[in-house]
Amino acid sequence: MILLDGKKTSSDIKDEIAVEVAKLKEQGKKAPHLAAVIVGNDGASLTYVNAKVKACERVGFESTLIRLSEDTSEKALLSQIDELNNNDDIDGFIVQLPLPKHIDEQKVIMAVDPDKDVDGFHPTNVGKMALNLPTFISATPFGILELLDRYNVETSGKHVVVIGRSHIVGSPMSILLSQKRKVGNATVTITHSRTQNLKKITLQADIVVAALGIPEFLTADMVKDGVTVIDVGITRIEDASKKRGFRLVGDVAFDEVSQKSSYITPVPGGVGPMTIAMLLKNTLLARKRRD
Amino acid sequence: MILLDGKKTSSDIKDEIAVEVAKLKEQGKKAPHLAAVIVGNDGASLTYVNAKVKACERVGFESTLIRLSEDTSEKALLSQIDELNNNDDIDGFIVQLPLPKHIDEQKVIMAVDPDKDVDGFHPTNVGKMALNLPTFISATPFGILELLDRYNVETSGKHVVVIGRSHIVGSPMSILLSQKRKVGNATVTITHSRTQNLKKITLQADIVVAALGIPEFLTADMVKDGVTVIDVGITRIEDASKKRGFRLVGDVAFDEVSQKSSYITPVPGGVGPMTIAMLLKNTLLARKRRD
Repeated sequence: MILLDGKKTSSDIKDEIAVEVAKLKEQGKKAPHLAAVIVGNDGASLTYVNAKVKACERVGFESTLIRLSEDTSEKALLSQIDELNNNDDIDGFIVQLPLPKHIDEQKVIMAVDPDKDVDGFHPTNVGKMALNLPTFISATPFGILELLDRYNVETSGKHVVVIGRSHIVGSPMSILLSQKRKVGNATVTITHSRTQNLKKITLQADIVVAALGIPEFLTADMVKDGVTVIDVGITRIEDASKKRGFRLVGDVAFDEVSQKSSYITPVPGGVGPMTIAMLLKNTLLARKRRD
Repeated sequence: MILLDGKKTSSDIKDEIAVEVAKLKEQGKKAPHLAAVIVGNDGASLTYVNAKVKACERVGFESTLIRLSEDTSEKALLSQIDELNNNDDIDGFIVQLPLPKHIDEQKVIMAVDPDKDVDGFHPTNVGKMALNLPTFISATPFGILELLDRYNVETSGKHVVVIGRSHIVGSPMSILLSQKRKVGNATVTITHSRTQNLKKITLQADIVVAALGIPEFLTADMVKDGVTVIDVGITRIEDASKKRGFRLVGDVAFDEVSQKSSYITPVPGGVGPMTIAMLLKNTLLARKRRD
């Protein structure tokens, strides 16, 4: 069994990006500049956004963090987005989700200039992804493709079973892995809460992508020997024995499934750490496209 | 075995649209107006575009056919599209594909205002489709959903196997049928030229969508009893016994597969006739949205 080490891989990617940024600067070019907008004081969101800003520093990007109060109106947020769309110094930006309930998230996503939408959430970018055109692929699916690529996990002709049909992970994963692309050409089955006989289906899988958000859902009896397992789930489970009072658990019963696996992502340290690296990669891409 | 009769169903839909158009007119409102642009003299394309114009007449739409010569420059075509985008009298328009080789098809598709893109080919509309947001679903997948709906073919929890991953049919079908929607909630497997053991997979299918473009590819030994079969293929096969010198054949070996099927689309007269009806439906939708 080989661990798909997202922590190490994301660190490698950041090193590679840092080298590219250094080169840009040597050529007298501007470093990529990522802006992040956060509305309100949600602890998890703040932690995550701060990690993004810190990652920018590490690779030599410029970054701007725009903190807006919880009671910011939708109109004010849209006007902030408009400013970022038109700010020539900003190569890409993200609006940290979720937003307060009085703001229409879809409206906000639609307001971001697709050319600066490094989260890849705008319908135009989702459409380009579905059409296999150059675009910003959103961080989690992009990170999974990159992990499979760097560990040379064969996908062509393999049967991938995706559990979960979210717009963020399950749906794009199923689209991408079936396409004619380097990490792709797989036969893909997308499953979800309405699927009947799920176990019969997962038992056929060469690769399982578990992205349904139910802790330790995928058990050893559901997979065949030699399977590759990508665990996208991450749930906090109370655990008094831990300093923080909780531990992080994926959608896969790791201890038992790993014994049957060729490759498997740990939680934490698998898919999670890849997301920020891929956001940086998209921002670098946005910067280069503007040359 | 029940035939999914696209000819009759499309005729019903046109009748329904005609009633809606009559109502609009009674209310003193403008009838929907569809424009079609065709470049060059390809016989099949001209036949198809003329059928669209004729269908407009039947349901009471206004229509405009714009014929450009084979040597029209890309620039001139883009300027024509710009004019249609800005022409307030036009609710929706299509550019008949394929285009002559000196014109970049993708550039042309990108130039159409997504709000007038009743073919549903613009990445923004494809993205909205993938995100299950209101949009124009392109005619062939939309027509298949409609056929399944009108014949009350249950899709929820069923296993659909799609053969073919084209951007026009296979890919959108697999996305749509897996979504949380009336005709949807299916477990979907998308298969293609790289798929291994295809027969093992199709034998599990409650519904097969054959959209690979190989005549009579799907044979009786590949499906289980009671299967529903949607045949998207349409190939001309030379046949001296026919007046026209050819006959139309689908991707399904109809005579043998129909004997095992609960529901099956004939070729011709199945999916094909649905496409024009769905184009009209999208144009009516475009008209209503502009009120």
